[in-house]
Amino acid sequence: MKLQRKHILGLQEMSAEEIYLILDTAASFKEILARPVKKVPTLRGRSVITLFYENSTRTRTSFELAAKIMSAEAINIAVAQSSAAKGESLKDTLLTLNALTADCIVMRHPNSGAPALASQFINGSIVNAGDGFHEHPTQGLLDLLTMREHKGEIDNLNVTIIGDLMHSRVARSALWGLTKLGANVTLCGPDTLLPREFESANVRLENNCDAAVEGADVIMMLRLQNERMNGTFLPSVREYSMLYGMNARRLGRAKPDAIVMHPGPINRDVEISNDIADCERSVILNQVTNGVAVRMAVLYLLLGGEE
Amino acid sequence: MKLQRKHILGLQEMSAEEIYLILDTAASFKEILARPVKKVPTLRGRSVITLFYENSTRTRTSFELAAKIMSAEAINIAVAQSSAAKGESLKDTLLTLNALTADCIVMRHPNSGAPALASQFINGSIVNAGDGFHEHPTQGLLDLLTMREHKGEIDNLNVTIIGDLMHSRVARSALWGLTKLGANVTLCGPDTLLPREFESANVRLENNCDAAVEGADVIMMLRLQNERMNGTFLPSVREYSMLYGMNARRLGRAKPDAIVMHPGPINRDVEISNDIADCERSVILNQVTNGVAVRMAVLYLLLGGEE
Amino acid sequence: MKLQRKHILGLQEMSAEEIYLILDTAASFKEILARPVKKVPTLRGRSVITLFYENSTRTRTSFELAAKIMSAEAINIAVAQSSAAKGESLKDTLLTLNALTADCIVMRHPNSGAPALASQFINGSIVNAGDGFHEHPTQGLLDLLTMREHKGEIDNLNVTIIGDLMHSRVARSALWGLTKLGANVTLCGPDTLLPREFESANVRLENNCDAAVEGADVIMMLRLQNERMNGTFLPSVREYSMLYGMNARRLGRAKPDAIVMHPGPINRDVEISNDIADCERSVILNQVTNGVAVRMAVLYLLLGGEE
Repeated sequence: MKLQRKHILGLQEMSAEEIYLILDTAASFKEILARPVKKVPTLRGRSVITLFYENSTRTRTSFELAAKIMSAEAINIAVAQSSAAKGESLKDTLLTLNALTADCIVMRHPNSGAPALASQFINGSIVNAGDGFHEHPTQGLLDLLTMREHKGEIDNLNVTIIGDLMHSRVARSALWGLTKLGANVTLCGPDTLLPREFESANVRLENNCDAAVEGADVIMMLRLQNERMNGTFLPSVREYSMLYGMNARRLGRAKPDAIVMHPGPINRDVEISNDIADCERSVILNQVTNGVAVRMAVLYLLLGGEE
Repeated sequence: MKLQRKHILGLQEMSAEEIYLILDTAASFKEILARPVKKVPTLRGRSVITLFYENSTRTRTSFELAAKIMSAEAINIAVAQSSAAKGESLKDTLLTLNALTADCIVMRHPNSGAPALASQFINGSIVNAGDGFHEHPTQGLLDLLTMREHKGEIDNLNVTIIGDLMHSRVARSALWGLTKLGANVTLCGPDTLLPREFESANVRLENNCDAAVEGADVIMMLRLQNERMNGTFLPSVREYSMLYGMNARRLGRAKPDAIVMHPGPINRDVEISNDIADCERSVILNQVTNGVAVRMAVLYLLLGGEE
Repeated sequence: MKLQRKHILGLQEMSAEEIYLILDTAASFKEILARPVKKVPTLRGRSVITLFYENSTRTRTSFELAAKIMSAEAINIAVAQSSAAKGESLKDTLLTLNALTADCIVMRHPNSGAPALASQFINGSIVNAGDGFHEHPTQGLLDLLTMREHKGEIDNLNVTIIGDLMHSRVARSALWGLTKLGANVTLCGPDTLLPREFESANVRLENNCDAAVEGADVIMMLRLQNERMNGTFLPSVREYSMLYGMNARRLGRAKPDAIVMHPGPINRDVEISNDIADCERSVILNQVTNGVAVRMAVLYLLLGGEE
């Protein structure tokens, strides 16, 4: 089966079948990551350009590694060294990378919709690696893969997402993916960070964190961005941590086999206590490994079918 | 046929035969760029270090891609992360890279002549990727390749170069290449930016842009650098754009099949109007693709003959 | 013979046998560096991540080149672009890179002991590429390799190390290596930069540079860091240069075939005169080349045995 699309811009536009295709492909690639020689010739001679207008360690490295494991060429462009500093428009940067014969551009941009715009200008594929508050689809996919690995099925799973929902592209991608695959989602955060428009048939909003955690199979913590800790949205970091941080007492309200997720980098003892971050129910590092597998799958499905 | 030189420092020192050899080699490599699997083993085990003391997206990426398509190892050194910040002399940096067994150093430097100096210290090859106001030879070569593709011959072609001639290494490389291959060159810009010493048998200087465009086969626009827009050299950007920008009315004075070129990144509606940048007579993106082919050819001719 | 350790954190903890194993392996790899096609498939499918919290040209490039020559994947993470800027702990960064399935992390960090800490969190190998004032083991190894190449034996060699001993991880690694292999070491510098605790059975401390050089087989100059030139530790750069810089007159007191070493980047006419830096007894550039060979050996011995 092949993916019937050229770009990965978000999970909102994808069908459950497409999502499952990527998850199944990623699951099959995990075996490669366990080998001492992590290298397959599948994407030899394909070029993947990472174009990052925002800093990143794990996402950029994860894509670079995924490309190299598949034998593609990976070329990194960080914005501070790029022509964007010379005032070039996004369109012209993309047209240029296209003319350089890039097969795939992995793009992170502070503006929601930038990758969708970019996809109009190139012959190759765009993969959205995070755009503004919009989506971060490969993060959503690795979250789904991790849940499926630990829980077997996404359908009917009780998933609670806690934190700054308003500014989180990670939450938006997870939300789209989870609802398409039939999960029951509870979103939890202070009113200032919990937009009412998220509410729907299988999405519940909840300000009380203890109530939100009750009976959960999966708890997804969101990173509290430093720029939200300044008093505009939250009274104080300490209060936030008490009301919405994950700790042993609060986790006790979830199902006994509930897992705890976080997209990283984590703020220890802010949104998650030190002991919970490192406990055996934390699957945070599994998420990182699954990120490589998901990115291998995405690159393979977008670039691999032409030979 | 082989290139009888070890370094590519500028087109001024090259013969027409050498230039044609590079163009012919580049033309033959364009086929590789059109393949789904863009990879040949030609330069396996050769190391290409890009040493950039100035920012660049397209040139650095283009060299990196060219090296990787030929299976060479590409290693990037950007100046902010380098020992230059520790005050190391250019000579010592080059001696060090040489001792690291670099086969080729692709170098961009703000000082004219830095690559020529560098070439004295290394066993491998230096490729000048732009030095001060001096030369940018691979840009000149890709410009020639693009003209030849669209016009068949460079000899006797009417080429008009418009803009800040004084501070342009792109213009100097093009000028050397074009005059060696027999083109009739018109240089056009305000008097403050049009040095009299450029005038020669087949180079005409012209302040009036309409007159300069008259009968042209090729129009090369130069980028207006931000640092020239401050009133020292130009009364205002708006006036510059009116007097020397390319637009549909002005392009009407050139031959009906004239092409428009620009080294990028472009300042839309400063030196080139939005509609002309995107029109079918614009070959700006062909230049970008040809840049990869030219850099493959240069690396091949410098590094490929030793096996 | 195999290396019986997983990490290279410093020479202090290594036996003479281990050091000789690395030197012998490096010596055998130097032949590869002399080939036109510098590429062996030995570490195909292994991933080496360079994680640098401090700037570096030669060390980072040397490791990247060593990895690529051995066909490993090299991925660079510089701190300014990393999640450390987002306040992630060192532990979490390491756990993340481990989850990305990195086989080896080459790490430079301003804090002494950071690589040792890091080694507790990963399944792969850590190579210390310089940590605070502690150690820089691959530099120590390349220094030993260079001495052995020129002098045949380390045992009983008279080695004088001159400069800022207090703040030098290069000196500490050399000191451990040299004393383990039986050299007679003289350390020389102003009292403010020459800690008394270095003194031992075969390590002599000496403030007078002429006396320290007397009869030396090997003279190792240390780099004077800019941040020490501010008057706190030294009266002035000029006085330092007169009292502790290497020049032709002073070198005359060493043995006639004495060699001069420096880890680079050099401050010409500060710690070493211009003519001595470039004279035939200077082996500074041999050190650079040997650095690639030593890093190939280290990566090979750590990563190569699993197949």
